[in-house]
Amino acid sequence: MSNWLIKKNSFEIEDIEKHGSKFLLGNGFMGYRGTMEEYSANELVAVNLAGFFDLAENSNWRESVNAPNPLYTVVSVNGTELNLSTLTPVSHCQTLDIKNGIHTRKTNFFVDGINITVKAERFVSMSRENVMALKYSITADKDVKVTLKTGIDKNIWSISGAHLNFINEEYNGNLLKLDCETVQLKNKLTVYEAVLGLCDIENRDLLHNCDINLKANTEFEFTKFGGVYHGGSLLNSEADFTAAVFAGYQQLKAEHITAWEKVWENSDVIIEGDEEAQLALRYSIYHLCSIAPHNTDKCGIPARGLSGQVYKGAAFWDTEMFMLPFFQFTDSVVARNLLKYRVNTIDGAKKKAKEFGHEGAFFAWESQETGEDACTLFNVTDIFTNRPQRTYFKDKQIHVSADIVFAMWDYCRTTGDYTLLCDGGLELMYECLWFYYTYSSFKVYKNRYELLDVVGPDEYHERVNNNAFTNVMVKHAANIFVQAIDKVKTLNPDFLKDFDKDLNWAYDFAEKLYVPQPNEKGIIEQFDGYFSLEDVTPEVLKTRELMANEYWGGHGLASNTMTLKQADVVMMLNVFRNEYNTEIKKSNWEFYEPYTEHGSSLSACAYAIVAAEIGYTDWAYKYFMKTASVDLTGNTKQYLGSLYIGGTHPAANGGAWSTAIFGFAGVSFTNDCLDISPRLPSNWQSLSFKLNWKGEKLNIKASSKGVEIDGIVNSRVTVYGKDY
Amino acid sequence: MSNWLIKKNSFEIEDIEKHGSKFLLGNGFMGYRGTMEEYSANELVAVNLAGFFDLAENSNWRESVNAPNPLYTVVSVNGTELNLSTLTPVSHCQTLDIKNGIHTRKTNFFVDGINITVKAERFVSMSRENVMALKYSITADKDVKVTLKTGIDKNIWSISGAHLNFINEEYNGNLLKLDCETVQLKNKLTVYEAVLGLCDIENRDLLHNCDINLKANTEFEFTKFGGVYHGGSLLNSEADFTAAVFAGYQQLKAEHITAWEKVWENSDVIIEGDEEAQLALRYSIYHLCSIAPHNTDKCGIPARGLSGQVYKGAAFWDTEMFMLPFFQFTDSVVARNLLKYRVNTIDGAKKKAKEFGHEGAFFAWESQETGEDACTLFNVTDIFTNRPQRTYFKDKQIHVSADIVFAMWDYCRTTGDYTLLCDGGLELMYECLWFYYTYSSFKVYKNRYELLDVVGPDEYHERVNNNAFTNVMVKHAANIFVQAIDKVKTLNPDFLKDFDKDLNWAYDFAEKLYVPQPNEKGIIEQFDGYFSLEDVTPEVLKTRELMANEYWGGHGLASNTMTLKQADVVMMLNVFRNEYNTEIKKSNWEFYEPYTEHGSSLSACAYAIVAAEIGYTDWAYKYFMKTASVDLTGNTKQYLGSLYIGGTHPAANGGAWSTAIFGFAGVSFTNDCLDISPRLPSNWQSLSFKLNWKGEKLNIKASSKGVEIDGIVNSRVTVYGKDY
Repeated sequence: MSNWLIKKNSFEIEDIEKHGSKFLLGNGFMGYRGTMEEYSANELVAVNLAGFFDLAENSNWRESVNAPNPLYTVVSVNGTELNLSTLTPVSHCQTLDIKNGIHTRKTNFFVDGINITVKAERFVSMSRENVMALKYSITADKDVKVTLKTGIDKNIWSISGAHLNFINEEYNGNLLKLDCETVQLKNKLTVYEAVLGLCDIENRDLLHNCDINLKANTEFEFTKFGGVYHGGSLLNSEADFTAAVFAGYQQLKAEHITAWEKVWENSDVIIEGDEEAQLALRYSIYHLCSIAPHNTDKCGIPARGLSGQVYKGAAFWDTEMFMLPFFQFTDSVVARNLLKYRVNTIDGAKKKAKEFGHEGAFFAWESQETGEDACTLFNVTDIFTNRPQRTYFKDKQIHVSADIVFAMWDYCRTTGDYTLLCDGGLELMYECLWFYYTYSSFKVYKNRYELLDVVGPDEYHERVNNNAFTNVMVKHAANIFVQAIDKVKTLNPDFLKDFDKDLNWAYDFAEKLYVPQPNEKGIIEQFDGYFSLEDVTPEVLKTRELMANEYWGGHGLASNTMTLKQADVVMMLNVFRNEYNTEIKKSNWEFYEPYTEHGSSLSACAYAIVAAEIGYTDWAYKYFMKTASVDLTGNTKQYLGSLYIGGTHPAANGGAWSTAIFGFAGVSFTNDCLDISPRLPSNWQSLSFKLNWKGEKLNIKASSKGVEIDGIVNSRVTVYGKDY
Repeated sequence: MSNWLIKKNSFEIEDIEKHGSKFLLGNGFMGYRGTMEEYSANELVAVNLAGFFDLAENSNWRESVNAPNPLYTVVSVNGTELNLSTLTPVSHCQTLDIKNGIHTRKTNFFVDGINITVKAERFVSMSRENVMALKYSITADKDVKVTLKTGIDKNIWSISGAHLNFINEEYNGNLLKLDCETVQLKNKLTVYEAVLGLCDIENRDLLHNCDINLKANTEFEFTKFGGVYHGGSLLNSEADFTAAVFAGYQQLKAEHITAWEKVWENSDVIIEGDEEAQLALRYSIYHLCSIAPHNTDKCGIPARGLSGQVYKGAAFWDTEMFMLPFFQFTDSVVARNLLKYRVNTIDGAKKKAKEFGHEGAFFAWESQETGEDACTLFNVTDIFTNRPQRTYFKDKQIHVSADIVFAMWDYCRTTGDYTLLCDGGLELMYECLWFYYTYSSFKVYKNRYELLDVVGPDEYHERVNNNAFTNVMVKHAANIFVQAIDKVKTLNPDFLKDFDKDLNWAYDFAEKLYVPQPNEKGIIEQFDGYFSLEDVTPEVLKTRELMANEYWGGHGLASNTMTLKQADVVMMLNVFRNEYNTEIKKSNWEFYEPYTEHGSSLSACAYAIVAAEIGYTDWAYKYFMKTASVDLTGNTKQYLGSLYIGGTHPAANGGAWSTAIFGFAGVSFTNDCLDISPRLPSNWQSLSFKLNWKGEKLNIKASSKGVEIDGIVNSRVTVYGKDY
């Protein structure tokens, strides 16, 4: 069990923020932060909702909405609240069981000569997405009367203003109901709460209030339930919630555990010989599954998961490039939902392209429910002047549309499900490519298209020309589009009749788009002119800082130097691992590694995977552990300038899985063929996992002996797809 | 005489810097600042040399060299130096006679009970470019022995480090000689000095030292001479200098006055009815003629003239767009020298194009003797962090090459001298156009070329797309190139045989280059997206300043607003005055005027000329006076961030002339035809001037009665060129 349990046996007040993310529960519909039941807005309690957004009054941006907290519970003894954030405990233990998605706390307080222990266990149901449940108990070492308040807490954390108007409260015995609507669009949200096991309750202010006469050393326990509903689920919300309450805590918990078992059945990765890596990797997978949109294609995965409103609750390229590989190989329903979400939000992407003078589909840098870009043109505050600082993430980080095309094609060819193409996918590809075509500059005298004035993954260098990652990505997207048309011709020729477009431009663009090539030393220049920037590393830049949390991009310290925020060329080598040889990978990895700050949690995994490929196993392991344990340690950048950016890191979680599978197990694939050639860290005896490959579930065990698939051992394995 | 005399009858110590420029003498080879004879480096004495540059040790940039001062002279009474900067005078008067290019000072000191008057008169010879002369006298109201030191002062002002190594000193009777060489390239410079009228001299430290027994109320006078030689003039320098000395002060002065008379004969403009405007305009013309390269095609005119090393002594687009019109109509030798200087420096322009990944000729933003760009990529210091700030003047202000093509064609068609085309001009045009072609982006789906990522004249908005001024300028340059080829076909068909180039691209480019058009309100957007910037004026931005001298461009206050530094669209309407109708001019003038800071001395004249054209005569007069008196008042921006930018403003001087001629006299021209339709300010009775038009000198008098050319009066005049 130890490899499934996150545990903290003490309490430090400064960990409240970090532990809220570390002990997060979630089911894709909502995330519940790892806070104590008695906490409130100050301690960053949040029931963070996926795909539910609002713009508060006088706010600069829309962000995801946090729901009122239906698990709020606090006990008082003689007027003293048993609140971990204000009362020093005798002992405290907090755990997260990642196998079953269950959070516990046990805290011993000493008040007025009495030892009182509070225990709580809770989960956010994986089988009923609107429901959460709590079992709460109190034990004292003397007879004592305590006061209990439990109900719905409206005092919720919100980064950028208040999002909910509270329009109706109902009390129906032990059941509370709170109807809300959002400030901007008046979208409805209803929160339910019910308790079982309490009596003599006085209901007011959305709370059940009662006194409890504890008997010495006798545990007093009750259970309670929360329900959060918006959108379509509102229709039968009361019936849905009361059914859950009547099922009771034990039954809900059993269902929930079964649902998690199914999740793990497909997604677990077993490392023999390295307990620390095992826990870190499982923890990463836990987070991915906790926030995946299992039942909807109306929302993406926010860049900080469901741990809060950081980055406005919006989805970035992180989803397609860092998380989707995991889902497409372990849960193709989620993978399809995520891609369909992009199809569904294409109008926002078209609007954005037009706004910036282009055509086609320019997907949002920060995508919310409509696909309109939540990113502002001033995404950072200059800490020297406190002025908003113009950033070019929104209008110049054009690779996002190509990332989506790329991911869609990867989904199709690994799952074998090409139906998505005729369900909006081909149209999406068309619009994305047309966007790039209108964006591109044709250099007549060179007979080639170029992509000028862009921002690549390395955000410290804004407005560069011919960023290698971007150009290669777009070139591939163009080729994918051409292949996708051929595919649809075979699968569904009638469909193409409706798709009546002249495509000569696309063929020309795919052929003539310029792609930076390795120089005589095998190095691919990150963008035109990168090599002539000041040759300094992040360590040197650090010594030039005048203030903490200086933003290094924009007009900051890194922009005119070779220091980069995150893997850019190395990310490209990772993505296109079959198209660059080991020598090129080595040259570039060695060249760029010293210049890379890893100021983004998206960086380390690219370095890890490429390091594994080129035989730098120690480096690969170091970067793997950095990626896999990012949310376990919580040692990440918390501020960008003055902007809070803490929370969980699903892209790194996905990157950890990818490092294990693509890096260490050596999985790679083409349209037809899955290839596995392991290169495990020396202390790993084996690595076992399941992969969906064109509809078939493969049980794979990689070890120093070779690869075992469904029990058959080979030194290296190539699997041919079925439908080719 | 009053309209020719600049006079200051008092002394304020804080004026030393300003008066150095205001009372400047010059002859195109060198400028001598309006400082006192006893001043030294602290008081910014400079003999600023045209076209002579150096890079000092540990300096960031090359700049023009200031020569040692051969007119240095100081008198002491009982050990007290008669130094205006340290001794409060009883009275002081400084004058500059702009008709004759003669500087005087008369200062009365009171020391130890004695009234002593120092008088000095000097000039920088307009007839012998290496020579300057000084007449110096002392008068006391009591018998007194004074000590005189006069010679060469090596302690000279230099902004960016010491440029000269002093390698040899010679004393030959009353003649001193100092041989120097520059630090970077070891270029030779020799300074001579000689005195006439002194005896019992002790020569040491490059000084003549002697005691003089003054008799009460009896003037003691002597004369001295300075010579400054470098480059070709070094060869016969000693003979040249001694010849000047032997000619003596009176003879040199007479020659000098005659040379200035010739200058004024061609360039004077007479305003009847407005003494203030008359003086300001003449003063502007004086400055232009003082710094014009009369005898060389190896240097341009620095942006601060020969008043010092500001802007590195480099030539900008100012020359072609603001000064050249004056010269081409009044002194075509100078005009041709200036254009030939560009032809001579084309290798620097080709090198620059290559450096930034293009081809052809990308002329320097700051051009020195080789045409290599003296502009750095970090031209401003951020005053909040003291860090160098990346500016895009050098690599993105691409219009400069088109400005040169444009100016060259204007020179040809107004002077009728097309020989320049076969003397490197056509090749220059070719290379400039090829540069633009390689720079441009062809948007295939729009079937047009665009110019993306540029900086227009308004430097507060860097890296914009399709800047109207730039696109229109380049479009014209392309059309000029095509016309120039036709012209050469007629004039010199053999030449074109050598010029064996495929030019289809040029015709295509000229045809398809996009030019922003007026919108439904008649407004031409300054660049793509300008209209969606924050709508605030300079007055509002001023209130947002956190520190004095904040730089508003780059990441500063103006960049994301509609506030502009200087005329941009209005400059374009000025340059292409025949191609936009009055309605368009009115709409744009009215629209852009409130947003314009006039943070550059290049701005007001464009507003003045267009205002005159659209009948806003009061506005035209206001902006004319602002332009014409910029160096008279000295009320200009002295600092850009922490960079000193004071000095004279030859572009504004040229703009003042252009406003009088193109604005008020209403002169315009096409290839064939000179058109004059006056619109004088109401208090101007007439405006008289001479214009060279295709080799013929026209005497023009514009008044409310109409136009008089060579004595013949018309209500409005059109002159047809002779060689068409």
